[in-house]
Amino acid sequence: LQRYGTVAIVGVGLIGGSIGLALRARGLTRRVVGIGRGEATLDEARRLGAIDAGTTDLDRGVAEAEIAVVCTPVTRIAADVMRAAERGPDGILVTDAGSTKVRIVEAVQAHERPRGTFVAAHPIAGSERKGVAHSRADLFDGRVCVLTPNEHTPADRLERARSFWRSLGCRLVEMDPRAHDDALALTSHLPHAVASALAAAVPAELLPFAAGAYRDGTRVAGSDAALWAGIFCENRVPVLKALSAFQDQLTSFRAALQSGDEGQIRHWWESARSRRRLFDVEPSNLGTESADGRL
Amino acid sequence: LQRYGTVAIVGVGLIGGSIGLALRARGLTRRVVGIGRGEATLDEARRLGAIDAGTTDLDRGVAEAEIAVVCTPVTRIAADVMRAAERGPDGILVTDAGSTKVRIVEAVQAHERPRGTFVAAHPIAGSERKGVAHSRADLFDGRVCVLTPNEHTPADRLERARSFWRSLGCRLVEMDPRAHDDALALTSHLPHAVASALAAAVPAELLPFAAGAYRDGTRVAGSDAALWAGIFCENRVPVLKALSAFQDQLTSFRAALQSGDEGQIRHWWESARSRRRLFDVEPSNLGTESADGRL
Repeated sequence: LQRYGTVAIVGVGLIGGSIGLALRARGLTRRVVGIGRGEATLDEARRLGAIDAGTTDLDRGVAEAEIAVVCTPVTRIAADVMRAAERGPDGILVTDAGSTKVRIVEAVQAHERPRGTFVAAHPIAGSERKGVAHSRADLFDGRVCVLTPNEHTPADRLERARSFWRSLGCRLVEMDPRAHDDALALTSHLPHAVASALAAAVPAELLPFAAGAYRDGTRVAGSDAALWAGIFCENRVPVLKALSAFQDQLTSFRAALQSGDEGQIRHWWESARSRRRLFDVEPSNLGTESADGRL
Repeated sequence: LQRYGTVAIVGVGLIGGSIGLALRARGLTRRVVGIGRGEATLDEARRLGAIDAGTTDLDRGVAEAEIAVVCTPVTRIAADVMRAAERGPDGILVTDAGSTKVRIVEAVQAHERPRGTFVAAHPIAGSERKGVAHSRADLFDGRVCVLTPNEHTPADRLERARSFWRSLGCRLVEMDPRAHDDALALTSHLPHAVASALAAAVPAELLPFAAGAYRDGTRVAGSDAALWAGIFCENRVPVLKALSAFQDQLTSFRAALQSGDEGQIRHWWESARSRRRLFDVEPSNLGTESADGRL
């Protein structure tokens, strides 16, 4: 059952901590080493059972790692991946959990050793809550994880990356980094931008009159600012395109409302509502895992 | 403890059903009569314990009512309020649960008897789910209920309306119908429009890559189309203004993103995030009830 020796987790926040908890809860590994910037977080991660040992020294942390999973903010991932690849043992598999892929993959594949160890990944799961304290062993259970291998990705590392992410409960999808970033701009980055615009549009003095629609519509506006500024910058052009698609919908609604034609408004609403219903019946949202891990 | 004799509920859906359940669960009334358009819904409401008896005949339903609560869609409320006022006993209090107030109040106050019995109300609670099957006895517990009395509202009816909505667990706020409609355009109608625009902006084939941000940001897009087309039409101008306020936020975000300035994006995000945090500490969102029922 213990498939792995040492797994190194670079960045022990919500995602890194949840990977550690999942690995340990499933008995998949002999040892989880957490690599962080501060002793306090590492102590907390150890206390919560997310890691067995912690260090602030990346080189030492990856020295015996069979797998290194980089879970730092997207703007730092490429550098951390390269460092882990350079300093880890020869056989190391390096993977990541970043919300964007194009820039990371481009940066890493310019370097020979990192390119030969790296399989880019994005487990689509998260929370507006930050930090290892909010980690959950079941965060990835039944969730989609996108892998974005390319012609430089060694077959053995790809097979190990598939096995690793599947072992955490993920259902795998493989696609081009560009297709990933375009898709996630619409399915994740846009909803985050919209949530924050909505949060800010309601004056503070009217908040007593807000209820469930505002609460849920703005939940992810509570996410970390630096983290999201990084994601938006890394994926600027696809997010701008996603904003335009959203803008088109809003413009249709405004036109229907301006006309005052109740039938037109109802028609617009029905079409949005049926899209939302499709989401509810998506297998990835039913909390079940398909037999072969594909969508 | 039984403060009321017969309470008539006109329209036994999610809201009407929840009022019935709350009245019965709290032992506040001798009898709840439900008035609906179809026998099937009335049977279901009776089976669920939301009403004691049901009828499709409004005149018979309100004949012995001390209080009639009109919970039909906003476009039908004024007519139902007037009918209940005309056909109910002399002492009847008529109130409603509509999401808009200006048009309803204007229509009702043009008629003498209805004007003398009516206190307009809006308990701010709901769900994207439709129908009596989703009713909950605690739907109004700790929620704000806005009353919009004016100079025509008889003092005795106002006092009874306050007592009625408080007895369901609501915290009362009294304001002008126009102020109510302007506020709710921002706090409720805008979030609904945004949720549906967001739902529709993501192509069906990308839904497997959507997760929590899309799920929560679009939840209320599942709401009933006819109901919401009615609310938008009733509150057209304030909703158009609310859309502009939202548009301004989106435009700021787009400008920050276009500039590619990470600091500017972070700054925009922080300001939205702090607004969202204010909502989380709103007393009305803590599920507690203040001693005097005011905000």
